[in-house]
Order: sequence, then C-alpha cells, then structure tokens
Amino acid sequence: MDDTILRQRLDSARVGHLATVRPDGRPHVVPCCFVLVGDTIYTAVDAKPKSTLALQRLRNVAAQPATSLVVDHYEEDWTQLWWIRVDGTARVLESGPEREAALGALAAKYPQYVEQPPPGDVVAVDVETVRAWP
Amino acid sequence: MDDTILRQRLDSARVGHLATVRPDGRPHVVPCCFVLVGDTIYTAVDAKPKSTLALQRLRNVAAQPATSLVVDHYEEDWTQLWWIRVDGTARVLESGPEREAALGALAAKYPQYVEQPPPGDVVAVDVETVRAWP
Repeated sequence: MDDTILRQRLDSARVGHLATVRPDGRPHVVPCCFVLVGDTIYTAVDAKPKSTLALQRLRNVAAQPATSLVVDHYEEDWTQLWWIRVDGTARVLESGPEREAALGALAAKYPQYVEQPPPGDVVAVDVETVRAWP
Repeated sequence: MDDTILRQRLDSARVGHLATVRPDGRPHVVPCCFVLVGDTIYTAVDAKPKSTLALQRLRNVAAQPATSLVVDHYEEDWTQLWWIRVDGTARVLESGPEREAALGALAAKYPQYVEQPPPGDVVAVDVETVRAWP
C-alpha cells in the first residue's frame, strides 16, 4: 500500500483502537479519537469517559511507553477489509504548545471538540513502524 | 448497563479489537471476528491474514495469556458512543472438540466462515472481567 493511501486512511478514520500495557503486564485497549500530524498520533483524554478509566492509559504509558494503534475497516464483504497498525512511543503532554497544537488539529478533524475542548492530557505517539494489511 | 444489553451488544458486534502483549513487553492489537459462547470469547486465525502477522497473537498469548477485547460503537453524535471491554485469559486451541464447537459458533455468526472455514488455531479467551462505558 503506498504512503498516500496509508495517510488518507489514517486521516479519514474517525476512530482508532489504542493498545497499551498495564503496569502489571496485562494489555489494555480503548477506542479513541485521534489525529495524525506529521509522524505523530495525538489523542486526547476528553470529557467523554469521566471516570478513572480514562486515566488508565496515562498510567500505562508512564510505565511502558510502547503503544500500538490500529485503524481498520469492516464490512461483510471480506475482500474489502483492511487495517493499518502504527506502533510507537508515547509521551504525555500535560500543557504547552505541542498540546495546544494537538488540540487544534483534533478540533479541525472533529467538530465535536470545538464545542467541548478536551480538558485533560494529550497522548502523543511518535510513530516508529507502520504495518498495513492486506 | 444490564447483562442482557451487554450480551446483546457483544453478540451483535461484527468486529472486536483484541489486545495482547508481545514477548518483549510491547502491546499488540488487531481487529478480529469473534463469538461469545457462555463466558468465553472465541476468535479464529482465519485465512484473511495469511502472513506471519496472524501468528503474532499466538506467540503473544503463549508468553502472556492475559488478553483484552474491546467492542465499541462509533457515530458522530458522541452521546451515542459506547464500548464494552472484556478481559480474560487466553488458551490456544489447535484441535479437538472445543475448537470444533467454536468454529461452529463462528460459522453461525459469520456466514463468510461457512464457505471458508478458518484453517488455523482458535484463541479462546475465558472472560474474567467485563467493563462497559458509559
């Protein structure tokens, strides 16, 4: 798959699935909104999940920054399936210009964020490898 | 969320996202077809991903059987979002009656499997905890 198609698919995907590892070594996975800027994926801890659940991914990447995000397309015609997985290293942005720029990019992709900007931390995943199927 | 709705949502979901941990401690996530039978999730390594990619999850659960599967619903009206995450312990079924029963349940849910039965191993995840949002 060429890079243009990869990037188009990542840009147009509305939801991704972010996997991290808990401090006790078990896996953790959440659906998330995200945006790709350059070679970094940004996802915000927004107001949607208000409980401590939202913070699990932050605790996880503090202990184990390796992170995996998959974007995929499902339909009943299985010849049309595809997925793209990006693996990288996460950083937590609590404040500062990179967090502000990420929130701007998220709001440009998701109008929902314009009305309700994410109040929490932003997770930045610097992409190291990209794998696509088929 | 009551158990009936939880089970309905898991039964009707066409795709889940399965997170495991690689032997080196990094997370891994793949979209997958699955079926819930009793309190066990079954997912097959089918003919769709032919490469060694399909086997990564098997190597992972051999080293670290803790597994997490999330099923979720996305739409642009974010008041309608939901997800269900089931965490459990994986077993790999290479042959035998439980594998056969799982393949039968998968084929009952996915007509696509009737024409092309999954040739590979089946991963069984015995569910230990279920978390739902909102």
